[in-house]
Amino acid sequence: MAQGVADSLLAEGLVRIASEIDGAFDALLPVPEDARARLVEAMRYAAIGGGKRLRPLLLTSVAELYGVDRGAAVRAAVAIEAIHVYSLIHDDLPCMDDDALRHGKPTVHIAFDEATAVLAGDSLHVFAFEVLADPATCADPFTRIELVQALGHASGAQGMAGGQMMDLVAETSEFDLQTVTRLQQLKTGALLGAAVEMGAILGRVSPEGRTHLRGYARDIGLAFQIADDLIDYEGDAATAGKAVGKDAGAGKETFVSLLGPERAREQARLLVDQAISYLAHYGKEADLLRAVARYIIERDH
Amino acid sequence: MAQGVADSLLAEGLVRIASEIDGAFDALLPVPEDARARLVEAMRYAAIGGGKRLRPLLLTSVAELYGVDRGAAVRAAVAIEAIHVYSLIHDDLPCMDDDALRHGKPTVHIAFDEATAVLAGDSLHVFAFEVLADPATCADPFTRIELVQALGHASGAQGMAGGQMMDLVAETSEFDLQTVTRLQQLKTGALLGAAVEMGAILGRVSPEGRTHLRGYARDIGLAFQIADDLIDYEGDAATAGKAVGKDAGAGKETFVSLLGPERAREQARLLVDQAISYLAHYGKEADLLRAVARYIIERDH
Repeated sequence: MAQGVADSLLAEGLVRIASEIDGAFDALLPVPEDARARLVEAMRYAAIGGGKRLRPLLLTSVAELYGVDRGAAVRAAVAIEAIHVYSLIHDDLPCMDDDALRHGKPTVHIAFDEATAVLAGDSLHVFAFEVLADPATCADPFTRIELVQALGHASGAQGMAGGQMMDLVAETSEFDLQTVTRLQQLKTGALLGAAVEMGAILGRVSPEGRTHLRGYARDIGLAFQIADDLIDYEGDAATAGKAVGKDAGAGKETFVSLLGPERAREQARLLVDQAISYLAHYGKEADLLRAVARYIIERDH
Repeated sequence: MAQGVADSLLAEGLVRIASEIDGAFDALLPVPEDARARLVEAMRYAAIGGGKRLRPLLLTSVAELYGVDRGAAVRAAVAIEAIHVYSLIHDDLPCMDDDALRHGKPTVHIAFDEATAVLAGDSLHVFAFEVLADPATCADPFTRIELVQALGHASGAQGMAGGQMMDLVAETSEFDLQTVTRLQQLKTGALLGAAVEMGAILGRVSPEGRTHLRGYARDIGLAFQIADDLIDYEGDAATAGKAVGKDAGAGKETFVSLLGPERAREQARLLVDQAISYLAHYGKEADLLRAVARYIIERDH
């Protein structure tokens, strides 16, 4: 695949999914005409119009490999993105990372207030499971319950939230490379893995048949986090749309502090090549997933 | 039913469910041997050994009317209690109600720290849906997805979290009786209603057949909140196990401020009588539900 073709495939994919996810959040989160309006406005503020929509792009791209109905895939994608957005709202709170900027605009607790930010995060959290459980996502209850299980497992104490806890502990501990890898597999990798898994669930791919896709997801998850560490190390806040240089400031070990920037960059490249090799038995139809893998380490935010 | 019999039925029911819920949380939340240990310890601290377990008692009592397997009912009860506990952890945060005491012991953000409290709440939140989605709860995926839907709907922006938002707004607004009623129906009533609904879902009661149970749940939900307002108005912190006198201090309108304590008490009594009347076509097997309804307004914490 020529680089120009891959670039335009990716660019189209990113634009398409961004518009679909914004549209779905807009339709699924109408503002009520009572005192709850402020809550739903905060949910919409956080959920609509920001972020790369990487998890939705992964989920819908995998679903497309198996001919899944686009509407179903987009609903599942909205659910996983709602989990991602809720985790960012809570992560940005003063008692957590205390960030004032997210996707280039004030964080929810700055734009609204802390209590509203806590509740907006909580509400997007449960919203994700409501969307998945709704028959509108998919008529088959077994598929829906599998989606709930996959997303629940990836986002709880043994997944994303567990990784966030390890991240808090990292500020006062000296983690080695193995522990940092484990931390990142939980904090970021679990949800990226769930995106791929949920696409496969919708495609009714057998658990055995998901092995290659799991390998792909695991490798891009780690590459993603190394790229994030590099952006934090050398990026600028205006491009990143969020504060940078925070890890070193917090005395946190990262892939960059443990490997150095050159070896970290090399490691990310190897992981992306390896991820793409897992897609070897797919044809052109997996070109978007290949382009996403490369994008993971080429993005600057 | 003689008062003494009802009392001992209720006392036995409360002791039994408390032990079952504690046992289930203990078994389902093993502490991992890595940096996530602190997170799971905070979840266990909040979830085990506290609270009246009213929602689990309601859910299992309804399930028992329809001969549901006790293990399945207890798992669903653990899920709804996890939602209740997560909401208390977040509600107690400094940016929300800023409470230092809950069930007679320091709140999670005091015993641990704020960031851990946010994450422990988030983790118990998703834990609830993981438990429901697990085949161990019930082999039939349709029943499991219905449980997820009922709990999701009751706890999100159109249920509990929406009520919490209205509660925040109430501190700076003058709500009338109708708005306070609506607030409480969302904040407390939705989850109490879900407890009854989930018991009925496990019992495969047809949606039409659930009308009486819904009436029962709606009335005890409102009675519960009036009783809570009365405890806040006239109780003492040692008995309540939490701070009291907070509503008046915050200038919040409650059933007591709007109706006066005497009319509020009378209203709660009427609601309990009405709730019990919805159980008229059940025999002795609903005696525990009748006793729970009376307990709602007779408790002092």
